[in-house]
Amino acid sequence: MVEGIDFRLEWPGLTFRAIGRRLMTINLSDLAAMGAQPRHALISLALPGRLAIADVTDLYRGIAERAQQYGCTVAGGDLSGTDGPLVLTAALYGTIAPGSRPLRRAGARAGWALAVTGRLGLASAGLALLLEGKRPRTTAERRFVKALYDPQPRVEAAKILQVMGVRVAGDISDGLYREIERIAQPAGLGATVEAGRIPLDQDLRRGREHAWAGGLMESEDYELVCAAPRKVLEAAGRRLRERFRLNLSIIGNLTREAGIRVRVDGRLVSIPSLGAGYDHFR
Amino acid sequence: MVEGIDFRLEWPGLTFRAIGRRLMTINLSDLAAMGAQPRHALISLALPGRLAIADVTDLYRGIAERAQQYGCTVAGGDLSGTDGPLVLTAALYGTIAPGSRPLRRAGARAGWALAVTGRLGLASAGLALLLEGKRPRTTAERRFVKALYDPQPRVEAAKILQVMGVRVAGDISDGLYREIERIAQPAGLGATVEAGRIPLDQDLRRGREHAWAGGLMESEDYELVCAAPRKVLEAAGRRLRERFRLNLSIIGNLTREAGIRVRVDGRLVSIPSLGAGYDHFR
Repeated sequence: MVEGIDFRLEWPGLTFRAIGRRLMTINLSDLAAMGAQPRHALISLALPGRLAIADVTDLYRGIAERAQQYGCTVAGGDLSGTDGPLVLTAALYGTIAPGSRPLRRAGARAGWALAVTGRLGLASAGLALLLEGKRPRTTAERRFVKALYDPQPRVEAAKILQVMGVRVAGDISDGLYREIERIAQPAGLGATVEAGRIPLDQDLRRGREHAWAGGLMESEDYELVCAAPRKVLEAAGRRLRERFRLNLSIIGNLTREAGIRVRVDGRLVSIPSLGAGYDHFR
Repeated sequence: MVEGIDFRLEWPGLTFRAIGRRLMTINLSDLAAMGAQPRHALISLALPGRLAIADVTDLYRGIAERAQQYGCTVAGGDLSGTDGPLVLTAALYGTIAPGSRPLRRAGARAGWALAVTGRLGLASAGLALLLEGKRPRTTAERRFVKALYDPQPRVEAAKILQVMGVRVAGDISDGLYREIERIAQPAGLGATVEAGRIPLDQDLRRGREHAWAGGLMESEDYELVCAAPRKVLEAAGRRLRERFRLNLSIIGNLTREAGIRVRVDGRLVSIPSLGAGYDHFR
């Protein structure tokens, strides 16, 4: 996480503790995407000398509390000065339960359904608001910004997916569209996504005709997308609702036909594979 | 490694390839200090958009070649843009051979000898020269700068130390003095170091009365210091010379008396524990 790129210290209500939690979340999410149990984290921070000790302490406190929440220890790392922006790096080590198999992007089959956890788009709406220089004023806006500042990784949900027989998954932090592409393309497949089934928050749907496009294209969500036979996903979805009150929404299918199509109001729309998700060097 | 703190792009002759090698070396050295076999590296780079693709490629090439040299794979990592200086982070994972024990700082005993690998001070002489804004002109100066730009980690030497029965070691990249302190102090011990036995390069001794102080206090060397019964160190030293033409110099002893003393011209000098090595937030 790079100050000025991934976050700005002047964003309203953003604490160092939340920054620390977020650093862990985005890395825990990568382990979740493989169905791994987090074990150890190495935390390397490049910090300007002007930073108050209390801020550094809060940063580590946020890191430690999110790590602990998922059974992960902070085992080491590095601390360096910098004349530039804060650069916060975490490297995580996790393990797959004995007898279990990791979730992977590889191995998807035509005809399988695609599903995504949680509700999408809140965080990117929060980011858009902040990038316009606004402060969150309404209840909805505060929810957007909170979703951006304090996402949770789907570590436990991923284990349920594994137990229920799901083998193919990825996290959508680079965008749902891009992650579907990463699952489908190497397998020589395409996908059809139902715009109306992309799980958006009520506050996002309101008054926005193409809100689904945000949910599909934007990044910032740390949810999981997975592919499996529809019945497997339906059973996994029931379990996730019971255990964690977490939605698993079936949003489409993998197809033999290449490319990703979105069904909007009964019409199939093709989206060029360029420009989806966030590219740091675009 | 942070640009402007750990290196400067304008330093004469410093290539991105050497920067990449150095990034691996300083991290491989931490594994060497534990006697671990390097396995996997995660490389996270924060790079400004203005950087030429060829430079990024050279950076990764340097990382890859040094990793490969020690049997380590680059397994993943992250790439981010930044508006500030380059920040290069590596996290390494290594393993201890079955039936073997890691080298540790803990466990030293009074009466054991202290020894250090290689020759010290070249790199910090190179750094001093560059920080004065000078270009290396003499053969000696070019050797200083090369030692700074392209150190080698003591991965293989550490394995020999282990096999020969050494259990206590550390790397001296924060300074020999500080590392001796880290070994002695938690064990409730002190140390006596023979100034004349600190292995300095010929080019450093020449014309400098207190050159030993640089070797003892300065950082930048990626050598190992270890503690063991004198006979163990003598035998290990013979093996290291045979196998790698590497010197293991016995430089002193661990003592029951706390504190670190240096014998200079037959006189014992006590050095306050403050100010040794590099502190990023001093």
